[in-house]
Amino acid sequence: MQASMPPPPYYAVIFTSELGDDHDGYEETAELMLALAKNQPGFLGVESARNKTGITVSYWKDLESIRQWKEHPEHRKAQETGRRKWYKSFTTRVARVERES
Amino acid sequence: MQASMPPPPYYAVIFTSELGDDHDGYEETAELMLALAKNQPGFLGVESARNKTGITVSYWKDLESIRQWKEHPEHRKAQETGRRKWYKSFTTRVARVERES
Repeated sequence: MQASMPPPPYYAVIFTSELGDDHDGYEETAELMLALAKNQPGFLGVESARNKTGITVSYWKDLESIRQWKEHPEHRKAQETGRRKWYKSFTTRVARVERES
Repeated sequence: MQASMPPPPYYAVIFTSELGDDHDGYEETAELMLALAKNQPGFLGVESARNKTGITVSYWKDLESIRQWKEHPEHRKAQETGRRKWYKSFTTRVARVERES
């Protein structure tokens, strides 16, 4: 899925991960988080692809929207399960999108 | 593949694309471009995943490195073929990575 956004500047959260062997509950939670994120204030769009590495880039109006989504109780629970159970490794990067073409 | 980088700030080029039906030569060119990019001044790392949507995030020291890579003759040729032949749609975003965790 490709996202379509307002003109920059806006923010991107680049989340890259590698899944371990236990995928139990992962897909359902990923879909639920996507649905929740879409309803957050400041959410602009999301793009996602997975092979061995998964990359999800979500786009946000500002850093405050990102902070609020990070602190969302359901999202926190999912983050915790991800860390403990699903992900072999992951990295989160917050970036300011300066141009788009 | 997940990239490992120096501390922010640095830059990310987020390239999202959807392939059309003609993939002829795509894989070879993608691999060649990856090998070339890795040898460019200012290249820091790259992460890539593809389902229907492909996402490639490449990381760079500064905007000048990104400009030089964009103008690289072999890369320009690949970009042109991509536009004309391989991609149904694509978006390029340049973003400044402000934090990583």
